[in-house]
Amino acid sequence: MEIITVERKILEKNDAIASGLRKEFLFRKQFVINLLSSPGTGKTSLIERMAIKTKNIFSTAVIVGDVQTDNDSKRIGALNIPVVQIVTNGGCHLEANLVRDAYKNLLDLKFDLLIIENVGNLVCPAGFDLGEDIKVVLSSITEGEDKPLKYPVVFRNSVALIINKTDLQPYLNCKASGIKENALKVNPSIKVFETSCKTDEGIDEWISWLESKMKSK
Amino acid sequence: MEIITVERKILEKNDAIASGLRKEFLFRKQFVINLLSSPGTGKTSLIERMAIKTKNIFSTAVIVGDVQTDNDSKRIGALNIPVVQIVTNGGCHLEANLVRDAYKNLLDLKFDLLIIENVGNLVCPAGFDLGEDIKVVLSSITEGEDKPLKYPVVFRNSVALIINKTDLQPYLNCKASGIKENALKVNPSIKVFETSCKTDEGIDEWISWLESKMKSK
Repeated sequence: MEIITVERKILEKNDAIASGLRKEFLFRKQFVINLLSSPGTGKTSLIERMAIKTKNIFSTAVIVGDVQTDNDSKRIGALNIPVVQIVTNGGCHLEANLVRDAYKNLLDLKFDLLIIENVGNLVCPAGFDLGEDIKVVLSSITEGEDKPLKYPVVFRNSVALIINKTDLQPYLNCKASGIKENALKVNPSIKVFETSCKTDEGIDEWISWLESKMKSK
Repeated sequence: MEIITVERKILEKNDAIASGLRKEFLFRKQFVINLLSSPGTGKTSLIERMAIKTKNIFSTAVIVGDVQTDNDSKRIGALNIPVVQIVTNGGCHLEANLVRDAYKNLLDLKFDLLIIENVGNLVCPAGFDLGEDIKVVLSSITEGEDKPLKYPVVFRNSVALIINKTDLQPYLNCKASGIKENALKVNPSIKVFETSCKTDEGIDEWISWLESKMKSK
């Protein structure tokens, strides 16, 4: 009973901070993605690819969460995009107060899109509102077809699913169509993209859809 | 302060149950592996492959943890191996009390090896003792070379690292040698295997090593 009370308090506090962040993002006309996935699905590669392709269309900033290291922020920073690294030191997900503190470093900058690259974890981050407009889940095709059924909350809470590394499909028993089918079982309205950051497959379709979402905010 | 107290209580309670389980496993002469990894690295495929190869050498039982579904226990059960499924219903890791309850279903059976397939999560399960003899971390080669640096606790706490899906190496920029190098940086004594459940590469070496560990218990 004591634990449940503490958990509720944590979530209530998180939601209050997330709500404040959401107002701030709206005021500044910034569209915000909370990008979720397992470790090693290509979140940073996707952000790199998007940054290169969209630099003449809209401006992007990134907040990166990792348990340890600032490898990802170095990779993104190399593209001349503003980036703030959060190292959680063992923490398994981002919470709104961490994003609020990181966002303070971006207050002097103008940008249209903020991507929050969450900690690589398909379970815990799904339950925490960070003030984002949309949650997007990235799945590597190598992970197998059953992940939406095994980890339903993150797929249910996401507006879009990006199935990445499709260039590896010829060498796998797993098919993107199987992942899509299972994702639609847990979330019939989820929008599904199939991408490869190596061959560029599907990246333009994903960016076009994102642009339309940004315009309708 | 309140939260820290609750967390400490949870860990103390877990450790007490794990300690009891460890005595029980020793009494019954069972060797126990706590198998940890991200989602979709091939934990169940490895168990399937091991079960087929070792059926005339030693007997195996499996406890499987998943956030949702009993897909994995069905796959393992099809091999005529005793298997108990734990569905955590959103929980991000196994705790000793869940294993103790699952293990009750195996008390009437004789077996030499118990594999506890943990929830697919590279962060949270690493901190919970389940009474196992060894933690083993499974990494898919598709996840990239930097995972040991980004998720150091699970690699530090594991006695062995199995780098799986090496059949995909020709199609990736990532090399098994790079993962190994980073794993040794965070845990210089970790034993590293390179395996493919598709081509059978490295499975015999892993089983031989495991056999020697089981004999020395």
